[in-house]
Amino acid sequence: MAWNTNLRWRLPLTCLLLQVALVVLFGVFVRYDRDADAHWVEDKLHSNSSDLDNEFYYRYPSFQDVHVMIFVGFGFLMTFLQRYGYSSVGFNFMLAAFGIQWALLMQGWFHSYQDGYILVGVKDAGGSMTIHTFGAYFGLTVTWILYRPNLYQSKERQSPVYHSDLFAMIGTLFLWMYWPSFNSAVSNHGDAQHRAAINTYCSLAACVLTAVALSSALHKKGKLDMVHIQNATLAGGVAVGTAAEMMLMPYGSLIVGFICGIVSTLGFVYLTPYLESNLRIQDTCGIHNLHGIPGIIGGIVGAVTAACANSKVYGQQGLAHAFEGFSTNWSSSIQGSFQAAGIFVSLAMALVGGIIVGIILKLPIWGQAADENCFDDDIYWEVPKDHTIYVSHPEDPNLKPSEP
Amino acid sequence: MAWNTNLRWRLPLTCLLLQVALVVLFGVFVRYDRDADAHWVEDKLHSNSSDLDNEFYYRYPSFQDVHVMIFVGFGFLMTFLQRYGYSSVGFNFMLAAFGIQWALLMQGWFHSYQDGYILVGVKDAGGSMTIHTFGAYFGLTVTWILYRPNLYQSKERQSPVYHSDLFAMIGTLFLWMYWPSFNSAVSNHGDAQHRAAINTYCSLAACVLTAVALSSALHKKGKLDMVHIQNATLAGGVAVGTAAEMMLMPYGSLIVGFICGIVSTLGFVYLTPYLESNLRIQDTCGIHNLHGIPGIIGGIVGAVTAACANSKVYGQQGLAHAFEGFSTNWSSSIQGSFQAAGIFVSLAMALVGGIIVGIILKLPIWGQAADENCFDDDIYWEVPKDHTIYVSHPEDPNLKPSEP
Amino acid sequence: MAWNTNLRWRLPLTCLLLQVALVVLFGVFVRYDRDADAHWVEDKLHSNSSDLDNEFYYRYPSFQDVHVMIFVGFGFLMTFLQRYGYSSVGFNFMLAAFGIQWALLMQGWFHSYQDGYILVGVKDAGGSMTIHTFGAYFGLTVTWILYRPNLYQSKERQSPVYHSDLFAMIGTLFLWMYWPSFNSAVSNHGDAQHRAAINTYCSLAACVLTAVALSSALHKKGKLDMVHIQNATLAGGVAVGTAAEMMLMPYGSLIVGFICGIVSTLGFVYLTPYLESNLRIQDTCGIHNLHGIPGIIGGIVGAVTAACANSKVYGQQGLAHAFEGFSTNWSSSIQGSFQAAGIFVSLAMALVGGIIVGIILKLPIWGQAADENCFDDDIYWEVPKDHTIYVSHPEDPNLKPSEP
Repeated sequence: MAWNTNLRWRLPLTCLLLQVALVVLFGVFVRYDRDADAHWVEDKLHSNSSDLDNEFYYRYPSFQDVHVMIFVGFGFLMTFLQRYGYSSVGFNFMLAAFGIQWALLMQGWFHSYQDGYILVGVKDAGGSMTIHTFGAYFGLTVTWILYRPNLYQSKERQSPVYHSDLFAMIGTLFLWMYWPSFNSAVSNHGDAQHRAAINTYCSLAACVLTAVALSSALHKKGKLDMVHIQNATLAGGVAVGTAAEMMLMPYGSLIVGFICGIVSTLGFVYLTPYLESNLRIQDTCGIHNLHGIPGIIGGIVGAVTAACANSKVYGQQGLAHAFEGFSTNWSSSIQGSFQAAGIFVSLAMALVGGIIVGIILKLPIWGQAADENCFDDDIYWEVPKDHTIYVSHPEDPNLKPSEP
Repeated sequence: MAWNTNLRWRLPLTCLLLQVALVVLFGVFVRYDRDADAHWVEDKLHSNSSDLDNEFYYRYPSFQDVHVMIFVGFGFLMTFLQRYGYSSVGFNFMLAAFGIQWALLMQGWFHSYQDGYILVGVKDAGGSMTIHTFGAYFGLTVTWILYRPNLYQSKERQSPVYHSDLFAMIGTLFLWMYWPSFNSAVSNHGDAQHRAAINTYCSLAACVLTAVALSSALHKKGKLDMVHIQNATLAGGVAVGTAAEMMLMPYGSLIVGFICGIVSTLGFVYLTPYLESNLRIQDTCGIHNLHGIPGIIGGIVGAVTAACANSKVYGQQGLAHAFEGFSTNWSSSIQGSFQAAGIFVSLAMALVGGIIVGIILKLPIWGQAADENCFDDDIYWEVPKDHTIYVSHPEDPNLKPSEP
Repeated sequence: MAWNTNLRWRLPLTCLLLQVALVVLFGVFVRYDRDADAHWVEDKLHSNSSDLDNEFYYRYPSFQDVHVMIFVGFGFLMTFLQRYGYSSVGFNFMLAAFGIQWALLMQGWFHSYQDGYILVGVKDAGGSMTIHTFGAYFGLTVTWILYRPNLYQSKERQSPVYHSDLFAMIGTLFLWMYWPSFNSAVSNHGDAQHRAAINTYCSLAACVLTAVALSSALHKKGKLDMVHIQNATLAGGVAVGTAAEMMLMPYGSLIVGFICGIVSTLGFVYLTPYLESNLRIQDTCGIHNLHGIPGIIGGIVGAVTAACANSKVYGQQGLAHAFEGFSTNWSSSIQGSFQAAGIFVSLAMALVGGIIVGIILKLPIWGQAADENCFDDDIYWEVPKDHTIYVSHPEDPNLKPSEP
């Protein structure tokens, strides 16, 4: 049999049509239940019911979930390069161990993971702006200053091998599974946390299907690219970070994820090469596609959702509860403006901070690798003397080891 | 020293005798404590104690546990083939992302994982019948229709390499650890959930020892086979699915696991080859041994346990609580008959559904791989150009790369 | 560019200075909050508040956390050897499945993980003495009796390959993340459990930075060694086991971790080779450095902390609550003496038990591997016929397969 295994149109169309149908059906049929709907906050404040029947669905997040994301998720996501796994897992481990102590010290045990303080009056529970947008553009600015024109000398290590991609999928899956905990971690206990978890699941799930669709559609033989599956499938979690705790509605979250799966994959295919060749920004891990653009989208979605908040959607008590702690002259348009300002403040701080740190890191005192030794654990780690042999592909009859 | 390292009799006998001893000791000494015993339900309904002291042992399950099983467990269990890891983890990821949305849509947030509704009046908390039996025979029927007589052309990729077996063990372990959560997820909050978790642990633990025993005993040099360790060790979780929430007793659960570890391993060694050569069913992952037979055993155990239910075992209130929601003319023999019928309904639906879907999948529009390209990520994925080199074994002095 | 990539002084000094600064800052600024401070136990006993706002930070441990440590953590930590991964994950799986049943049988469901009963009157929540010290010296005694002078014949398999080190890091990270659950598992529900978790995080985090520092400082080119990152980073969890639930203070925990990261790494570099060459103890996994010395340090820290306990530090009620269940003539110096005695009792039992078991295991009936076949799954497992090819290093122009 000589069947056509090129899925370039079949897989993308199936995924996209399915996902469009799900958005429509969610729009018609799916609403938050009482435990996740801001309307019912009054009821709950006066009742003593502990909603045990829903405990299975409404598990509250814990800091340990966030640790799994940081230690295992981040650590293994970056093992995709063939000879950079030790650095990926090991340096991430060091930084996380330092970060835990720093968090404890800075904000006290109560507030250790709440990074949004910087921007008073701005809601950013899942950190679309204060974590993802800031982090991405900070890093990209540093990268821009540290630009290495001769990095092609390390080109042969800037790609995965078969097993390294599977290690990276450990990271992707643990990030995906615990992202709802991350986005709901600092929200108000109760309906806001439930809502944040539901919205994040919806956005992430939609994002997987559209990332897969685009990955196949953009390959000339319709093949999927592991880089997209590892990264673009998570963009929905980033983009729903700010609005997750708001009344974004399940179908609204699906739309956010839908768009981000597409935009993020397009970014990997077209924008990353453009950034390197034209803007001198070498974005090896594609953080611009996973954290940068989705972070900005998340900021915009948050601003629009906040600007549309009203007592019809939240209930009178629910609205006060959801946006409590802000000025007595609160209005949804003021909140929306604050949110929009948050995006620009995050970007500005990222650029200024990135320039300062980039200049400091350019000093030749940090033990940086030479251009021809980048992406290689061997510089900083005692590495076993085995190494993967690059051979021509099985289909090629001349099977022999090639120079690495 | 030339010690005899053949464990063919020593290891199996040790494991089996130990496990028999544990069954006997559990029968004599181990009973459910108050928090897991149906007798005490009346007490608990009238008390406000929250049993904090037992919180360590009685953690309630959450949907996130089930996600770990589906995304990490299923995804990695199937990475055991040498060149099918991307498809295993990646396609599972896609399906799970779709499944989450489907579950939310179908049954609403409250009931998303409750698959047993199909069969009204039948108890099947852990899905022995409605999930495992149905799923296995549905899949096997599809496989039977899609039979490929020339699949031997892909034979060289239908085996593991060293590292792929370790990736698969990630899947096995996460499935094993969270299976008690899965089996107890939709049970009544309180003693039924606790009981379901305990019974599942007992069955799974016994199953590991007997699977190991049989794996060694059935190998001519007494060596263990990773396929059995990866799969048969989980059969106890399947087989206790229906009865987990019932008063099966800890020693009863051990016996279920004991039998299933043996039956499942026997299935891998004798039945799978027979199915392929005589019944034209190509069961690459051995689902018949992990889900099919153990699922049917689970249905039978559930029917017998339900038929034996009485107020002496459950307490008067406990019996009503455990089988609440059924007809007022309830009797244990009626319940037992319903349970037995559930097995046949599951099987019938699996066969009919499998035939329909199998015929649809036979249409040459799905991008199926040709016989010589099966079990190869390279058809649907952009795969790095490294590949494992097959060399003769270390003991062989002629160490050289061989044709893959 | 020919930058100097030798981090031998830069990385260690940075890590050590940072960690010293953190100890000082914690000493000045960081205290337990009300939920983790023994002082407030009286308040809490009289209030009905459930501290929901802190639920994110104060997740209580569960037995499932401990399962993740045992099944995944232990199982994968030992996959670092190139051809011993099946045995590592598989035999650990078997033993854990047996262990669960044994625990259920021995102590009943309520007390299954409480190993400290042996030593009445001695506090040892995280098992520094009863689990780690006992286990390590028991094992080392067995090893000493089973000494194999010709083990060098298996030397080529007694090292990792690139991917096996990454598998081992899965084990390390899951052990690290869930260790706070382990150390707080059997403590009193409430402030003691919270304190145990915080202290363990602090000790583990400090330990990572000093282990990294020493690993680099002790290598002639300043390179990090994966063995240290995999093991010494966990020593802080062992060493804080006994005192974790006591008022050790966050800075006290940092100091314990600080010391253990250093001592454990020194042990790997200097002591392990010495033990093998001079004391005939072959400690392949370095358990003396991860469990032995840190276990004894943990016993000492526990004895000193208990001996310093007073009502100023704990509050009057808090002191009674923390050391409840002991004699009415309780004093901190008696408690301290009991704790110190616990170390010696643990050591004595380990030596006696190890000698007995070692002699039994020396009998040639257990199917032991011959000296030239150690560290090889192939003896007990059906292993795929691929194997890693040892080639000269990429920098070496003569790229060719070498004898394994």
